Amino acid sequence: MLPGPTNVPARVMRAMHVPIINHRSDDFVELYEDCVEKTKKVFMTEGEAVCLSSSGTGAVEASVVNLIKKGDKVIIPVNGEFSSRLSQMLEWAGASVIKLETQPGENASFETVKEAFDNNKDVKAFYCVWNETSTGTMINYLDKVKDLTSRNDSYYVVDGVSIVGGEELKVDKWGIDIATTGSQKAFAAPPGISPIVVNERTKKYMIENPPHTMYFNLPRYFKYYEESKHTPFTPALPLLYAYREALNMILEEGLDNRIKRHRTCSDALYSGLSAIGLTPFAKEDSRSTVVIALNYLEGLEDKTFRDTLAQKFRVLVAGGFGNLKGKVFRVGCMGEVQRYHVMRTISSIASTLDMMGYDVDAKAGLKIAEEKLKDL
Amino acid sequence: MLPGPTNVPARVMRAMHVPIINHRSDDFVELYEDCVEKTKKVFMTEGEAVCLSSSGTGAVEASVVNLIKKGDKVIIPVNGEFSSRLSQMLEWAGASVIKLETQPGENASFETVKEAFDNNKDVKAFYCVWNETSTGTMINYLDKVKDLTSRNDSYYVVDGVSIVGGEELKVDKWGIDIATTGSQKAFAAPPGISPIVVNERTKKYMIENPPHTMYFNLPRYFKYYEESKHTPFTPALPLLYAYREALNMILEEGLDNRIKRHRTCSDALYSGLSAIGLTPFAKEDSRSTVVIALNYLEGLEDKTFRDTLAQKFRVLVAGGFGNLKGKVFRVGCMGEVQRYHVMRTISSIASTLDMMGYDVDAKAGLKIAEEKLKDL
Repeated sequence: MLPGPTNVPARVMRAMHVPIINHRSDDFVELYEDCVEKTKKVFMTEGEAVCLSSSGTGAVEASVVNLIKKGDKVIIPVNGEFSSRLSQMLEWAGASVIKLETQPGENASFETVKEAFDNNKDVKAFYCVWNETSTGTMINYLDKVKDLTSRNDSYYVVDGVSIVGGEELKVDKWGIDIATTGSQKAFAAPPGISPIVVNERTKKYMIENPPHTMYFNLPRYFKYYEESKHTPFTPALPLLYAYREALNMILEEGLDNRIKRHRTCSDALYSGLSAIGLTPFAKEDSRSTVVIALNYLEGLEDKTFRDTLAQKFRVLVAGGFGNLKGKVFRVGCMGEVQRYHVMRTISSIASTLDMMGYDVDAKAGLKIAEEKLKDL
Repeated sequence: MLPGPTNVPARVMRAMHVPIINHRSDDFVELYEDCVEKTKKVFMTEGEAVCLSSSGTGAVEASVVNLIKKGDKVIIPVNGEFSSRLSQMLEWAGASVIKLETQPGENASFETVKEAFDNNKDVKAFYCVWNETSTGTMINYLDKVKDLTSRNDSYYVVDGVSIVGGEELKVDKWGIDIATTGSQKAFAAPPGISPIVVNERTKKYMIENPPHTMYFNLPRYFKYYEESKHTPFTPALPLLYAYREALNMILEEGLDNRIKRHRTCSDALYSGLSAIGLTPFAKEDSRSTVVIALNYLEGLEDKTFRDTLAQKFRVLVAGGFGNLKGKVFRVGCMGEVQRYHVMRTISSIASTLDMMGYDVDAKAGLKIAEEKLKDL
């Protein structure tokens, strides 16, 4: 139940177990083109997709270095570790960064974003971390940002590393220019492949203004793909096979079904864990459907709690990040998450708390979770 | 017989097939520390090692962006695709690059390098591509460069992507400050992990002058490793397991034995393929022991030759790169290469040439190869 890397189905793991092929061969073209086309389906875009051999941070860095030039004005909501990192990357790229800072656990409202656009008519781009994994918050107005970026055709970039595939993202319809994710989150593939999608006008801009970097040089990827459907650098072949199989599973389940499953499970987790006496860290209107951050009860020690949960029940949850270390723990609700994961997690957390001397109502938690899960 | 990715032993492939672990756990520390320590053994260094989740190009880019600042003077021999790329990365980082250019197939001599040092007493670093995979050349004076860099304590950086583990590299003894490789070459692991080793003084410089990049930010890797033996970003876990197993196999065989095996096999390949009538592309004093580039015979068409060899004999070799496309083909002699690979390759190439109407002396090729291989 980690917020990534998540459990990987045996079918996806098995897909890695094929002989290493030549990455300059027809076998590779068949594999990579399939990865690209299926990635585009999950992102709901007709644009370009590049599957980078890196962690999600690599794809996010690619979204920065290929678009931002010295002096560009950028708006970004900042409320946790990953949005701070993205903001840092933007500054390194030379951007003048307008940070819409909120407390961890809260999101900048759409009105705040609108105000920033009102006050900065020369903005080049809006960047956001859709799901802030460090605090369990999620921006829920991605469909509305286009109204602001369309004013001056500024760029709209979504870091969706921990959430794409688990929540709804309509890249083309919502006017998103660049979006990224990582394979090890809601895609339920092993870590190491990070897709980035780029629409036509942004691709054109990148090709006309190529970045001074090599490994994340997207124009180079576009060129190789156009010429031969190859990648410029040797890709992580076994992981691409696994990634393709994970995409197959997503498309077989159906995107709508998958998103509904994620939402139902997280609703059950929030309700069930609240009923046993825990409180979510994030404000209600900002809560993520794929990462549930919970406040520790008074006196509950992080390491003891998570070790007990892991050793006695084999349920793994993550601790807090940075300042939140020891104050919250985080439950992933992504990828393969099913009814039994939810029930087992609530039951195991309740039992662990009970063993540590807390008075918790396990029954109430399981009852409400079952109700929420009834349509799954 | 590709010059990477190379065949991966079943034992290494099987190592990937374990459940995905938490990269913030003791299980990960055990895995990653093992990878780091064994990497250091193969590079013969007491310095730091970082195992990046990227292709070799990523590690090479890390060697540039973490060391080179605007205006730094750098000397680099350039004679092919990969040294041109490295030179390009140095320029992007703002370096004033002194290129020692030679024809493809030839290396800048040590005297030329010495002269460049004589004429540039303020040089900050010497970079080189040890093995130029695109042309089958190898620099054979790595042990002597220290005499030049030690004059003003300039940095000595070796891109060993396609060769480390297959040829001798004494990082500490030879005064090398940074060295890199890729997992999919002489290590015989799947592609996707690229180690970089950095000695103490260079690490200190990097920490005091951190780069403005995220994914290849080595000070960040040093900090995470020092604090918790973690990596800053989610690593490609299955590939790390495979990489570790490949390191185990290298150390079980013994570095000396492994290098001897590579040298013996390449000697047999050069002799055998020459005896059947082919000529190596690289000048004799510059020839690589891990990538053998051969000139096509008059009228021999690249695609037809390689397709026939692949389809009838299941022997895969690579074509030429850039300007050399259609003019040379390249045989990898790295990783798992053994007696039978050499014999089968010579025999299959001779038979293919025969089928395509060329008069070749297969027997002569196999006879001399067998002689060369007798001590293996």
